[in-house]
Amino acid sequence: MIHNKEIKKLIEAYKTIWALSHFSALGSWDLETYMPSDASAVRGEAMAKIGTMIQSIYLSKEFINTFKIASEEEDLTDYEKGILRNVRRKIDDFTKLPPEFVEKFERLINQAQVAWRKAREKDEFGLFAPILQEIVDLTIQKTDLLGYENEPYDALLDQFEESLTTNTVKEFFEDIKSFLLPTLEEVSNDDVFTSGSKLANTKYDKSKLKKLCIYILDLLSYDSNRLRLDVSTHPFSENMGSKYDARITTRFEGSNLSRPITSTIHEFGHALYDMQTAEELEYTPARNPHSLGLHESQSRFWENIVGRGKPFLGLLIDEIKKLGGEYKDTEVDDLYKLFNTVKPGFIRVEADELTYHLHIMIRFEIERMLVNKEVKINELSELWNSKYKEYLGIEPRNQAEGVLQDIHWSMGAIGYFPTYSTGTILSATWKYKIEEDLRTNISDLAGEKEGIKKIKLWLKNNIHKHGNVYVFNDLISKVTGKSFETESWKKYITSKFISS
Amino acid sequence: MIHNKEIKKLIEAYKTIWALSHFSALGSWDLETYMPSDASAVRGEAMAKIGTMIQSIYLSKEFINTFKIASEEEDLTDYEKGILRNVRRKIDDFTKLPPEFVEKFERLINQAQVAWRKAREKDEFGLFAPILQEIVDLTIQKTDLLGYENEPYDALLDQFEESLTTNTVKEFFEDIKSFLLPTLEEVSNDDVFTSGSKLANTKYDKSKLKKLCIYILDLLSYDSNRLRLDVSTHPFSENMGSKYDARITTRFEGSNLSRPITSTIHEFGHALYDMQTAEELEYTPARNPHSLGLHESQSRFWENIVGRGKPFLGLLIDEIKKLGGEYKDTEVDDLYKLFNTVKPGFIRVEADELTYHLHIMIRFEIERMLVNKEVKINELSELWNSKYKEYLGIEPRNQAEGVLQDIHWSMGAIGYFPTYSTGTILSATWKYKIEEDLRTNISDLAGEKEGIKKIKLWLKNNIHKHGNVYVFNDLISKVTGKSFETESWKKYITSKFISS
Repeated sequence: MIHNKEIKKLIEAYKTIWALSHFSALGSWDLETYMPSDASAVRGEAMAKIGTMIQSIYLSKEFINTFKIASEEEDLTDYEKGILRNVRRKIDDFTKLPPEFVEKFERLINQAQVAWRKAREKDEFGLFAPILQEIVDLTIQKTDLLGYENEPYDALLDQFEESLTTNTVKEFFEDIKSFLLPTLEEVSNDDVFTSGSKLANTKYDKSKLKKLCIYILDLLSYDSNRLRLDVSTHPFSENMGSKYDARITTRFEGSNLSRPITSTIHEFGHALYDMQTAEELEYTPARNPHSLGLHESQSRFWENIVGRGKPFLGLLIDEIKKLGGEYKDTEVDDLYKLFNTVKPGFIRVEADELTYHLHIMIRFEIERMLVNKEVKINELSELWNSKYKEYLGIEPRNQAEGVLQDIHWSMGAIGYFPTYSTGTILSATWKYKIEEDLRTNISDLAGEKEGIKKIKLWLKNNIHKHGNVYVFNDLISKVTGKSFETESWKKYITSKFISS
Repeated sequence: MIHNKEIKKLIEAYKTIWALSHFSALGSWDLETYMPSDASAVRGEAMAKIGTMIQSIYLSKEFINTFKIASEEEDLTDYEKGILRNVRRKIDDFTKLPPEFVEKFERLINQAQVAWRKAREKDEFGLFAPILQEIVDLTIQKTDLLGYENEPYDALLDQFEESLTTNTVKEFFEDIKSFLLPTLEEVSNDDVFTSGSKLANTKYDKSKLKKLCIYILDLLSYDSNRLRLDVSTHPFSENMGSKYDARITTRFEGSNLSRPITSTIHEFGHALYDMQTAEELEYTPARNPHSLGLHESQSRFWENIVGRGKPFLGLLIDEIKKLGGEYKDTEVDDLYKLFNTVKPGFIRVEADELTYHLHIMIRFEIERMLVNKEVKINELSELWNSKYKEYLGIEPRNQAEGVLQDIHWSMGAIGYFPTYSTGTILSATWKYKIEEDLRTNISDLAGEKEGIKKIKLWLKNNIHKHGNVYVFNDLISKVTGKSFETESWKKYITSKFISS
């Protein structure tokens, strides 16, 4: 589907950018997994330089000329158009942001991550506040440089999800909220989801965890020649710009066994997207990065709809028993409780499928206020706590489990959070579409390896293979014939938590 | 010692090359340690692109101009001159080698490494022969492009050791050989070195090996925030272009315990050089790559002169006993035997301190014949075996332990081997100079952590801190006041193996 000669020339010209991005991704992965700790400043320098090089290639006369010639071609295929769209977007952004700005920002966030880690460790927001102020200031400057229609936050959303606007997110959250609050009320009467699991604080031998996680990846028929699993403080998925090299991490901290397991499945969902992209998109600009919402719809599909369901948990039970101790007599129902307890908590990444979105709403509201200069940095911790009181009825006892919990702001990723919600909601749309197409229920497929393979194949043919060819809304219409919608998710939540 | 403004501008311009080299090194390290196996072609593409980029920056008008202005400056310090020398060398080489040639070579060696591994695994030279032929052809072409005074091999030697010539190596090996043969004869009567160790084939629990290697690095007071140890098929040391990020590997194969231990110490020796380079050389062209001979003089100093000596082995004995089984009652004398058995063998990396050089001579002679077209690829295996018969009195039983044993040719590194010998010989020069300067014997220092620290400090102040400022011969004269010599090594070997 990529035939046009000029597009092929553009892909060839892009290959240098591809190589630089490949190493930038490797650098990020290494930073979080194996890099010696004293090397962080050196890595920061190298990453900043690579960032500047990528920008300067995009803005070089030669590259822009190749792009212009290609963009004047007619009768292009979707894939060819997708390639042009991705390149155009980058050229536009880089044209608006001066190289000095990009380099300054890169350097700042490298320092900021160190400061954030320290602040979190010492539970002292003051250690992070000054640098966060700088990040917010630069981010506001960035919105001015990028431009926006209605309000500055629009420019930020667009960076992570093309064309997503603040108004859309606002309406979306009002919709979700009006469903969530009564639903949460109703669920609170259900013993299965609210009585708490006896396993939630049951210690286990962490040395056995890696093997368990590999067992899970085996259930998902992962390809160990292309995907590796490591351990890091924060679980993540990193792709080296190719379907042949994906890396995920999980974490082995805390006493709740569901955490490392759901992290592994979640990150596997991201990796699978990257690994099932069409061969012909290799080395092209339409591979990475994907729409964050689409990507999250994959990780959350596997984590929540497959991973937290009874059939899949049934596949784990024998391995869980091997953990010994109190796990020796675990039943599937115990696991189901452990993985699906609904309870307001402080930590986003530990939240259940319902309250999760309240965490995101809080961040969205705070970020918007920051960018609109409606809150000062030194009021942030208080604002955070009052929002938690309002939305979740609980107040963080410290800053590590409050305003300091997420890495995102230290990475300069303001405007990122909403895609966690849109992606999660979208995952239910896929569920019902798969069930319609395959004429069976996910729960029938998720309880056996062969069924899981069928799900993977559907995802490959309908979503993954297209890489980043289509924007969020276009891919959804292409697959479902409809626009992005929240009804599927509400139906899924109702059937799981209310009418079960 | 870097004050000149124009030199500083050159360093600034070099920083992009530095960043690319940083990621290239990371890519190599990752390839050998954690990269998923299916990703090798993708990594090859990325590495080739980075190689081309580095070349094109060196040859850009802007960079060459910055270099020219800097090179016209007067009254430069040694460090400033060293920086100019390193840049000039690169510009010269890249000017002579067309970009298409460099890229073709890069791609070829990526394929060749895969072919070599396969051929070695299947013990079938024919699987590697055709691509080796291509490598030899391109290498001959390379010598023509680079130019040479006397014979093509000179051009190759110079790539790995600036100004080293075939004639010098020939004379050097004649010198070493005339000492080695009678010495080997004499040693063969000594029971300690030739009776063989009962531990040479004593199995041990490999899961305890990592801990043992870390224990050894602790004895050497390594800085775990800057240096990490991993496991790979072939032990190596990789540096990310900074004193703050060094990586070494060892291997846990085979039944001879001395192997993983000496590998760890050897690679530590390389890493220490990189980690003790002066702060002001960070990010400059005079850091990496170092003279291979100087580098090897460091790894072999630690491996042979410290690591295989009784005092250091004495520090290990309690940990070795913890391996249990037959190791429970090990005495220092048993270890000394294990680490110092002198016996002709097929495998270079397993050779003792004496026969090691015979392995190198064989390679030197064969490489020269290859480049002079005096031997055909399909005669190579036979030639190899006849040389082993001649030099070591033994004939390889298969090709994996014969002509296929080394990775070097598949990496296009023809002309590299001689630096293994020159470096090893040089390590003894350092031993006596340290003893003179510190007024004590290495054996008195190597048996305690504090003594080891003193050795490290001497190496830092006399060798390591200068990075790649001085070429091989210049650094030797600077430190010892004399030229490169082989007498120290002969004295060391005699005192260890004959008069002990």
